[in-house]
This record gives sequence, C-alpha cells and structure tokens, in this order.
Amino acid sequence: MKTNAISCKDVTLKDGFWKTRQDINKNVTVDAVYNRFYETGRIGSFACNWRTGDAEDQKPHYFWDSDVAKWIEGVSYILMHEKLPEAEKNIEWLIDGIEKNMTSDGYYNVYFNIFGLSKRFTDRNCHELYCAGHHFEAACAYYNATGKDRYLRLMERFADLIYKVFVEEKSAYFVTPGHPEIELALITLYRTTGNKKYLDLCSFFVEQRGNNEKDIPLFNDPKYAYDVGPMRKAAYAEGHSVRMNYLMSGVCDLAYETGDEELFEACRRVLKNATHKRMYITGGQGSTYIGERYTSDYHLPNKTAYAETCASISLGMLAHRMSLYETNSEYDDIVERTLYNNTLSGVSLEGDSFFYENPLEIRNEDYETEYYDFFWQPHYIPRTRRKVFSCSCCPPNIVRLMASVGGYIYSLGEDTLFIHQYIASECKKDGVSAEISTSFPQNGKITVKAAGVAKVAVRVPYYCKELTANLPYEIKDGYAYFDADKTVELDLNLYARFVYSNTRVYDNVGRAAVMYGPLVYCAETADNATVENFFADASADISVGGDFHGAPTVEISGETQISGEELYSEEPPVRTPATLKMIPYFGFANRGEGEMLTYIPLK
Amino acid sequence: MKTNAISCKDVTLKDGFWKTRQDINKNVTVDAVYNRFYETGRIGSFACNWRTGDAEDQKPHYFWDSDVAKWIEGVSYILMHEKLPEAEKNIEWLIDGIEKNMTSDGYYNVYFNIFGLSKRFTDRNCHELYCAGHHFEAACAYYNATGKDRYLRLMERFADLIYKVFVEEKSAYFVTPGHPEIELALITLYRTTGNKKYLDLCSFFVEQRGNNEKDIPLFNDPKYAYDVGPMRKAAYAEGHSVRMNYLMSGVCDLAYETGDEELFEACRRVLKNATHKRMYITGGQGSTYIGERYTSDYHLPNKTAYAETCASISLGMLAHRMSLYETNSEYDDIVERTLYNNTLSGVSLEGDSFFYENPLEIRNEDYETEYYDFFWQPHYIPRTRRKVFSCSCCPPNIVRLMASVGGYIYSLGEDTLFIHQYIASECKKDGVSAEISTSFPQNGKITVKAAGVAKVAVRVPYYCKELTANLPYEIKDGYAYFDADKTVELDLNLYARFVYSNTRVYDNVGRAAVMYGPLVYCAETADNATVENFFADASADISVGGDFHGAPTVEISGETQISGEELYSEEPPVRTPATLKMIPYFGFANRGEGEMLTYIPLK
Repeated sequence: MKTNAISCKDVTLKDGFWKTRQDINKNVTVDAVYNRFYETGRIGSFACNWRTGDAEDQKPHYFWDSDVAKWIEGVSYILMHEKLPEAEKNIEWLIDGIEKNMTSDGYYNVYFNIFGLSKRFTDRNCHELYCAGHHFEAACAYYNATGKDRYLRLMERFADLIYKVFVEEKSAYFVTPGHPEIELALITLYRTTGNKKYLDLCSFFVEQRGNNEKDIPLFNDPKYAYDVGPMRKAAYAEGHSVRMNYLMSGVCDLAYETGDEELFEACRRVLKNATHKRMYITGGQGSTYIGERYTSDYHLPNKTAYAETCASISLGMLAHRMSLYETNSEYDDIVERTLYNNTLSGVSLEGDSFFYENPLEIRNEDYETEYYDFFWQPHYIPRTRRKVFSCSCCPPNIVRLMASVGGYIYSLGEDTLFIHQYIASECKKDGVSAEISTSFPQNGKITVKAAGVAKVAVRVPYYCKELTANLPYEIKDGYAYFDADKTVELDLNLYARFVYSNTRVYDNVGRAAVMYGPLVYCAETADNATVENFFADASADISVGGDFHGAPTVEISGETQISGEELYSEEPPVRTPATLKMIPYFGFANRGEGEMLTYIPLK
Repeated sequence: MKTNAISCKDVTLKDGFWKTRQDINKNVTVDAVYNRFYETGRIGSFACNWRTGDAEDQKPHYFWDSDVAKWIEGVSYILMHEKLPEAEKNIEWLIDGIEKNMTSDGYYNVYFNIFGLSKRFTDRNCHELYCAGHHFEAACAYYNATGKDRYLRLMERFADLIYKVFVEEKSAYFVTPGHPEIELALITLYRTTGNKKYLDLCSFFVEQRGNNEKDIPLFNDPKYAYDVGPMRKAAYAEGHSVRMNYLMSGVCDLAYETGDEELFEACRRVLKNATHKRMYITGGQGSTYIGERYTSDYHLPNKTAYAETCASISLGMLAHRMSLYETNSEYDDIVERTLYNNTLSGVSLEGDSFFYENPLEIRNEDYETEYYDFFWQPHYIPRTRRKVFSCSCCPPNIVRLMASVGGYIYSLGEDTLFIHQYIASECKKDGVSAEISTSFPQNGKITVKAAGVAKVAVRVPYYCKELTANLPYEIKDGYAYFDADKTVELDLNLYARFVYSNTRVYDNVGRAAVMYGPLVYCAETADNATVENFFADASADISVGGDFHGAPTVEISGETQISGEELYSEEPPVRTPATLKMIPYFGFANRGEGEMLTYIPLK
C-alpha cells in the first residue's frame, strides 16, 4: 500500500536519543562543517573569483557545489523549526554568488564557471548534474523552510537549461550523469514546483541510463556508475555504492509518482541483493575503497570495509522511499539498521569530526607498523574522526540527515498513521496529529497517541520476538495495527543476542556479532585489556546495562587467552575466564586510537 | 665453534627429495628461466646495443645484470658436476658481451653502459653494486666449476674500480649500496682470489653503512635500506627483507673471516628479531608488499603476506652462514624451515613457473570480486605461478638455490663432521668422506656413514621429541655426537602436530597450523569442499600418509559448518563431523586457482 510521506517539517522531535543528536547537530556540527568549508575555500568559491596564482589549496574542485549545497539543505531543515540567523545570512551570501555568476542561459557550477564554460557538459565524470541535483534539493528545502524563492527560481532556470540541453538539443557529450543524484532531486523539484517537466527529465535520465550508445562507461567499467543496461532490468547492487543508492532512490521516487510497478520491481531486486548479500551488519555498503564500491556476494571484509557514511545514509534514503511505495516493515528495518549504526558512526559523539569510512575492525598493528611513514601509504582509515576531508561529501550529509530524521518516522495511509521508526516526537499534518514517547533504544517501551485517523500501524521489527501491548492488534506486512482511539502502549522487549553471519562471509567464520535491538556492538581496548584474544561463550547470558550516550552497554562472558613468549609453539595458549565490555558500534573511536572488534571469536 | 663450509662442489645428491628437485631444476627450470630472460631482452641486453626506438619491452632495467648473473651462478653450480654444453655456450656469449662492453677502467653494467656512463655511481638506488655483487658471485662460481677465469678476471677489474672509486677517491655520490649484496660477494671474491683488498672493501661497506653523512636514506626512510646506524649496533629485522638478509649475510661472512665477535653479535640480534618476532611459520619474511619489507613484531597477516621467495632464500643464506660461525642447531632449523616451505613454494612442482610472493591464505573472493578488472588494482598475488615477472629476481634465485643445496648439508670441524640437513648425498673433501641415506621428510630415518673424522655430529631438530639411534651419543649445542667409526642409524620419529602462534599474531587467534617434521601444511579446495568453514579438533589424532611429491599428506578431524540462506541470523551455523585433507605448503596452487588456508580454525 502506498502511503504519503510526512516531511520533517511536520515533525518535531521530543527529548530522547535523536533529539540529543539533533541538538548537537544544530549547536556543533552545522558550524563545524561551515567553518571547515570556509577554511578550505568551498564557501568563498561561490564568488567564482579564484584565479590561477591564488592559493592552490583553495582551488575549486568540480564537486564543491554539492558539498555546500548539502550543508544548505541541512540547515534549511533546521530552519523549518527555528531560527539560525547567522547560518541563514551565510546561505543568502551563497545564493548571491549563485545569482551573480549564473550564466544568462541558467548555468551554474563553481568549477566550470571559473575554469571554462565552454567545457560544460562535456565530461560525464565531472559531477555537474550531481552538483545541480544537490542545488535543487537545497533550493527546495530552503524554500520550504523560509518561503524565500530566489534560490528555487535560479534552480528552476538551471533545470530548464538541463532539460533543453539533454532532452531537446541533445547537445551534451553524454546522455546520463556519471554520478547520479539529480534523478531524486528532480522529483523533489517537481513536487515543490508542480512543474511536470522535471518529472519528465527524471524519467529521461532513468530510461536512458545503460540504454544508449553515447554514454561511455566510466573507467571502462559499466558497473562503476551503474551503466549495466536498462534500469527496468536492474537486479544487482553494483558499482559505486553512493551513486547506486542515490540512483535507485530516484528510480523509486519516479515509480512512486508514476505508479510504474516495473520500475519499482527493479528497486526491489536491487535492494534485496544490496541487503541480503552485500550489506555489513552495521548497514554499511561497499566492501572496498577501490572505487568505493560493491564487490561480490558475501564479500564483507571487516578491517578494510569501506562502508562509507554517505553509502549508509543513501541506502536508508532508498529503503525509506520504498517503504512509502509499499508497506513492508523490512524497509524500515533497513533504515533503522543504517541510522543506529553505520550512519551515526560517521560523526563523533561531540559532533565536530567525521568518518568517511566505517570499518568493523581496527588493529593498531596495521597503523603502527614501521612502513606507515613510508612514501607508499597502505589504505587504512584514520583511527579517529577527522575535521574535514578533501572529498567531503559525508560531513554535510550528516548535517542534513540529522536535521531531517523526523521525516523517517511517520507516513499516512488512507485511514492509518504508520509508525516507521521509534523516535520520540510529535507530528501534525492535514488534521492528523500524533505523539511518540519512548526511551528507545535504551529499551523497547513505546507509547503512541494519535488523532485524526482510525488506525495506528506500528512496525514490529525483525528482532522483536514478543510484542507486549495494552490493546489488541492485528499484524499485517510486519506492522501491528491498533485502533487509534486509545493511547497505544507497547514493548518490543529488546534483548541482547549473538548474531551469526552466513558461513560464506569468511572473515566471520567462528565469530559472532552482538546486538541489542537495532544496535550492533563493538569491543574497544578503551574498555578491555584485549579485544582480539577474547572468546565469547555464546550460551551464556549477555548482561545489559549502563548508559552510553542514550543506549545500553553490554558485557559478554567467555575466556581470554595468552601464549608464552614463543612465536610458534605446540602448546596451545592458556585460557582463563573473563568478560568483555562492549559499546554500541556508533560510538567507536571516540576515546583515542584504540583497537576495535565487532565480530568476536567464539569459545 | 667455527666450522669449515663444505661447498656444493664437494657434495653430490643421491636419489631422494632434493635430488628430484635438482633434476627438475636442471631439466626444466634452467631453460625456463633462460628462455624467458631471452624473450624479455635480458639476455640480449648484454650486447649493450639497445637504443631509443628499439622495442620498449626490451629496454634494459638497472637490475637486469643481477637477474642474468644469478642464472649464470646457478648453472655454474650444476656445471661443477655435469656438462650442460648449451648453457655453457650461452654463458660464454654473455661473458663476451661483458668483455666487449666493459670500459677501459673496468666498469660494466648493462643499464649504465647503454644509458650513460657519466651517470654511473650517482644514484644509490640504481642497484649498480648489487648487480656487481651478483656478477662477482657468478664469476667465482663459473671459475670454480670450469676453471675458466675470463669472467673472474673481468670482475676483479670491476671490483678494483669499485675499491678505487669508493675507498680511495670517494668520488661516488654515495658511500654504501642502496641494495646490499656486494658485501657477501666480496667475501666470495676474496676467498676465490685470495686478494685481501676485497675483504677490505667488504669491511668498508659494512663499517660505513648507517655511519656516514653522505648516504641519504632511500625513500626518506632510514630503515628501508637498513641505514639505521652502525652495523655493529644492528638489532632489528627492518626494512626491505631481501636487502637486509643479504646485508647480514655479508656481515656474517666478514665476521667469520676476521673473527669479529661484535659484528657477529649484531647478526645474532637481528636474526633473533627476524625469526622470533617477524617470521611466518613458513620461514617467510616481510609482511607487506609496500616496500617488500619487515613491519613490526607479530604483525604477520596471512592473506597479504609478502613473504618473497628471495627473502626466504636469503634468510636461509644468513642462517647457514651463522651455523658455520658457531655450532647451534637453531640456525639449521631456520635454514630447514625456509627450504621446505617458503623457498620451495616459490617454484611450481613442474619447475617452470614461479611465485614472487608466498601468502598463507588465498580467498577467491578477493580476486573474483567485480572490481578486479577495474583500473585500480588491489594488491593480491597471482593465484597461480607465473612464468616470469618484470622484477624477476626470484626465478634465477631458485635456479641457484636448487643447484647449490648440497652446500647446506655438511661442515667440517676439527675432528667432527657436522650434518646440518637431512639430504641424501655423498661428500668428499680433504680426506673426509661421508654419505647420508634418507627418505626425509617422508620419515625421520637417517643413515650416516663417515670416514676421515673422529666424530659425526647430527643436528637434532626442534621438533624431535625422541631421538632413536643405534649407537650411543652425546647432545651438545643441539647436535647428537657419534663416534664416526660405525654407521649411524637414527630416527627423528617425525609426527604430525598442531602449532599455535603467539597470541599477538591476531590473524591466527582461534586457529592453528599443522606441521610434520619441518613441513607446514595447507588445505586447498582442490582436496576439500570447504577450507574456510572447517573447524579442527586439536585433541584428535592427525592421520599421516600418502605421498605428495616426496612428502606425506595429512588429514585432520573436526567439523564443517554451513548456515542457512540468511546473511545474518540468530541461529548458529549447523556443524557436522568432517575431515580436512592437507598437503605440504610447498605444493600449494599447483592445481588451478583454488582457495588455500594454512591456519585452520579450531573447534
């Protein structure tokens, strides 16, 4: 069943796990990202006045528009609920730059405006349409937040130009973007303006992808940018993970608007492959930094996991969109898995530094070996979060995700309010109002009050073995349907558990992960003398308790081992009983450069 | 106690494990390497007539002299025992090239002869002294084999020039070689010619290393080429593994000739670090391809092990040299570990193809992932041996190791013949004669006859728990001393066993290797349905039997596991009893591109 989205504009978070993070986002992350973008020249670049001879480290890159636009989009979601005068002033300055430097025919891109407009639309790998898409998203968000339409009007002109160049003139050197994202942005632009041209342009890019002779695959690899054939036949999660998830999000939005079941079936196939064969337990996507991409089924190495923050965010975007097309709690389970693990780990607990990559294991020896200072650098992620990266897509993506998380909670069917995520909040839309009270994920107790609808359908997650409720309910498509006339009080009865990987995931043979509700846990040397030489007793109870930034910690029982001095010996290492303290994965690497392990060897 | 080497010239192998390999070396490998060197232009390059515009793939590289010289050296060891007319003719042609192109002051190097003699001795990283050293070794071997001294005389001129440039004039741009090897070669040249100048030149290079201001560390890293300070203070196995082991071999030879205990003590320290903290169970050296080098203590990853064939060979060279300086069975144990595992795995069973790297684990998924065809190549070794590499040091190193293995068996003390290795052979030197009969490593039965000495001292290896002998003996320094008047018949009582790594070797936590005598075993998918999902029962007997190219195979008991279809599940995988067949590690990857595992998870 198709349901109507309830945007983050219509949802206010209440005190709880996510409100705490939204506050950190607003109070720390917004400025942290802006300041770093300012220092690195990204902000200033909107004046389009960098010239040869100026500071090389401020030289604009062709993806800088997208970084800044994502920040504007994120701030706009905050502006839907409260004032941020300084940030709004900065956004206006940025829009000034766009307005001043947009060409008479409606083109704007920092890089090409500076380095040669004659080269525009000639290189499929130059992220122009990706940057345009992020501007469209930002412009719509800013308009929806403030009612000010200057940015939106500029972006309509840009979108019109793209329509003309790609659909009417066919004068670009390529047919579809090397880095998708504009597809989903065009749907947002269509929804915001009502102009069907943007829906058509989205449809054009989707139908032409992998289906024309002019698009030369990037890096000689049709899979890299998902040029694998007509999108209607798409079946596998392949290539660059973020590109694929943005692309499929656009495809899903298009299917939603047009009711095109064949297109949606492609989304189903791709999401199934992505999440049933190629997803880290944390929701991470992409097993290798080489191409930041999907590899093959069950190939999920822990130490070298790429699992980019943006890939996790974009998988959540796709799954949430799919949950609006058809009611199926599995989609929400995926969103939740990404939110509480691989996405949240992308930002420090303080909110001022970021991970691009989110591995499932860190061994100091890989960093502290003598060769690390050598001119050949091996590829391991930084062990602590960085303030900014040269490729800085993830930090502003965190800003906008945190600010818009309210949009993932509710949706509205004909007479039913759907609760997708257990986030303390209130919503009001079209005569419907609702309120969720919960300490989730500390425990599974959730209270829902709703008015203006007949039914409330609350997701029953895959990890709920016993649903306790104060009212009768019916289960359908993974949702518990309650009459909305009374307050619903339910308990998901969360419990800690060992989770085993498919035996084709070779890194995890003889090991298990620990979860509590949607939370994946990890062990760090900050809490334990050894994390590599602990063997868990999977038959013993897991102790749950304490509070780690809104979630419990756990302790598992087992044995540690230690060998003699010899490098090799016929004597097995000596084992002694021990316990291992584990924290939620999202909080790893916030206490220095320690070792971290997600999959624990079993006794 | 210092003993006298007995060269491979004085030793003839008898039918057995190593004779089989020597025959393959002579009948297959010698020509295989020559033919590939011919095809790649290495042989032709000795005419020094490559010019710009000629085939780019035949353009000489600055290490080509060393490749070819090593092949000459290997063939020369064969010529000590039998005729190879075609190979000898080819060597003469190569010497013609050297003679014709050597400069009037005695310089020869294919690369610099072609690309500019004015640049000679200006770049420490251009392997000139390394190439010279290999020529010295080859010239001495060829002279000792044939009595023909043309090559030797040319190389004496070259060595004299180097002495003049480096010691007298100090006109080179550097003081010591970036790639050591000349040190040990100068000792060979000294021993062959009796000219003390070469001993002095060796001493100069050793004493100056890490001890002068002119040598700039390569790649800004003093450890890379072992520029870590005075050699007398050397303490760690660091930097490029092959360079270090060649260097320490030269240092050991120098100490042997001069009785310099302080220098030898440095060898002891370095070897101890190399073998007690940084050695794969296979004798492999160097944990990373990044710099082909040592990393840190206990950092011994299996899949990405570099463990270059040349590094294993050169560790054996060092340990054997040390065994001549002082009687200690541990040195021979190290030699044996390298010979039967990481060195032998460097060549295919047929003798015509080679591994540069020798990992301890191969997972097909790392190769078969979709990104493998991508323009960014991840670094995994080829899964099957190659005919030749662009950097082709290992194949000719195999040729000379196989041909000279007889030199690792015996040495002579004052009244005692030492048996270092259990290799079926006869030796005759200075009135002493001996014969070893054995099927080792199929079993531990060894018969030794000796004449012309009072005692025979047979090494008792670290894995011998019970030595059975037909005669009384005394144990000293890890050797069993017998009176030499009767035939000694002994049995090392080999057995198969699980071997545990130090618990700081994180890749091997919860796993064990399997050994029989000096042989490390591995499991391949060629013999087993799964190698990754088998759990060994370390308390069960290991079954030993069969014959795999002169060594037994083993079978271990335990369980396999298989999960359901789910990627993640609360249900542990189902285990069923099973056995795992294992072959000697040296034979891995001779049956197609399968998976291979050395460390087996434990039940």
